[in-house]
Amino acid sequence: MSSTGDVDLSRASIYPAWITDVIRYADLDPNGHVNNGAINAYFEDGRVRFRDEHLAHLGRDVLRGFVLVRYTVEYHAALHFPGEVRVGTTVLRVGRSSYTLGQGAFRDGHCVATAEVVTVHVPPESGRPAPLGEPLAQALATLGPRT
Amino acid sequence: MSSTGDVDLSRASIYPAWITDVIRYADLDPNGHVNNGAINAYFEDGRVRFRDEHLAHLGRDVLRGFVLVRYTVEYHAALHFPGEVRVGTTVLRVGRSSYTLGQGAFRDGHCVATAEVVTVHVPPESGRPAPLGEPLAQALATLGPRT
Amino acid sequence: MSSTGDVDLSRASIYPAWITDVIRYADLDPNGHVNNGAINAYFEDGRVRFRDEHLAHLGRDVLRGFVLVRYTVEYHAALHFPGEVRVGTTVLRVGRSSYTLGQGAFRDGHCVATAEVVTVHVPPESGRPAPLGEPLAQALATLGPRT
Amino acid sequence: MSSTGDVDLSRASIYPAWITDVIRYADLDPNGHVNNGAINAYFEDGRVRFRDEHLAHLGRDVLRGFVLVRYTVEYHAALHFPGEVRVGTTVLRVGRSSYTLGQGAFRDGHCVATAEVVTVHVPPESGRPAPLGEPLAQALATLGPRT
Repeated sequence: MSSTGDVDLSRASIYPAWITDVIRYADLDPNGHVNNGAINAYFEDGRVRFRDEHLAHLGRDVLRGFVLVRYTVEYHAALHFPGEVRVGTTVLRVGRSSYTLGQGAFRDGHCVATAEVVTVHVPPESGRPAPLGEPLAQALATLGPRT
Repeated sequence: MSSTGDVDLSRASIYPAWITDVIRYADLDPNGHVNNGAINAYFEDGRVRFRDEHLAHLGRDVLRGFVLVRYTVEYHAALHFPGEVRVGTTVLRVGRSSYTLGQGAFRDGHCVATAEVVTVHVPPESGRPAPLGEPLAQALATLGPRT
Repeated sequence: MSSTGDVDLSRASIYPAWITDVIRYADLDPNGHVNNGAINAYFEDGRVRFRDEHLAHLGRDVLRGFVLVRYTVEYHAALHFPGEVRVGTTVLRVGRSSYTLGQGAFRDGHCVATAEVVTVHVPPESGRPAPLGEPLAQALATLGPRT
Repeated sequence: MSSTGDVDLSRASIYPAWITDVIRYADLDPNGHVNNGAINAYFEDGRVRFRDEHLAHLGRDVLRGFVLVRYTVEYHAALHFPGEVRVGTTVLRVGRSSYTLGQGAFRDGHCVATAEVVTVHVPPESGRPAPLGEPLAQALATLGPRT
């Protein structure tokens, strides 16, 4: 993925923030594998808790009006029930009015999927993209990939 | 089910209100059948839209503070993808501070599941059961099983 | 619930078998509470893993052809994201061709929901209820409520 | 999206194949909008039924061993309950061992999301990418964007 530059999202060591999800029986599809939709939900949990645990100190006003506009996921391996999935999240890019997160989902240390997610700041008052603001931009800048 | 008296929830003709849901691939479980949880979601859609289409004229205040406390479902037949499910909803009983809905889910005219659902009026201010109020009780009374 | 006799499903100490699920953001509904359907999924995980961890030694043949026919759930308290839910499962009753499980879902030690679930043995060959068989009946008998 | 060339996935008129899904109450998230995960499920239904309705005549053997490896979605507008969503699906590119689908989700004629999906032929015997085969490649070639 061009926007990630030389960041390898399948390497667990790059992620500064982690959550753990438990695979559910309802996640399985007729093949007996975890459905891609469930993997998307694990990534969503990673993002929501990344925001709640690493950005919430900026206050409710700073976090209002953010819209996920683009989600790209690569599925690398089949996933089975039961078990846990660990999701790592990092900041790949901070733009003027948007930022891009990178994510990896891991089972027993093996990467099963990676994702890139673009979020844009669109205040509901204007309905148009607006700058992220310095406090958020600075906080995001500290959450880039570990090297 | 004793509380239904002599009402047969598997008979489509008793229901005054209907919705249609579309079965999704994600509803399937490893057996290739629609998962019970998806059937529960069809019944939920039946209840939410029953409220929105048949009770919303009572106003937001009349419908505040209702809590689903008991849900009983009987699964009668396996359900397959793709296809549609029709859900009928009726009022089985109107009590002082609660009411009971009866529901049936049908595929091509055949009943695949039936449910009974008890909802209690618990205003958030008190956190305790309170009377339904006359307007709601009267509206519910008109939505009983067709004979 | 008559079939539970004097068993109080909201007491964690009665359960011989436990699993832990993680609440997901996707479990939330517009009220900001965990949707009832998600709680149903936690109970499903409790049952599937109860079977896999406590009955699978009986062999695949002994566990074939079981159908969940009746599910009753009582929702006791609202549940919030994020966090974990622990689900306990026990055997309430062993009949000739069916058995009944009791379940409790707990958050930080508090019971948020309880369930009773009736499963019937219906071999696919006949499509009619058939005896559980001695090995299963005996295994189930050892998994009743702790006192 | 570069791989789509000059195909505008937000134009309904390009799609040769359509399905309709019904929005569920359980699709809603705490914002009162349809959750992105539900939109992903609508796209999945579009793909599964595209295969079942337009490719199944090729036979089970021709369709074995296909793996979704990359899914990119752009969310254009918020979606609300209740209502229906129509999903169009077309073939954007046919490669040697993979093909790319384009999809659009529409509400009342307005595009709410678009997706690109790359599927690779990986026969389970070898676990390595293998040619699509002429029958599938030819069938896919007839399902490109309408002009």
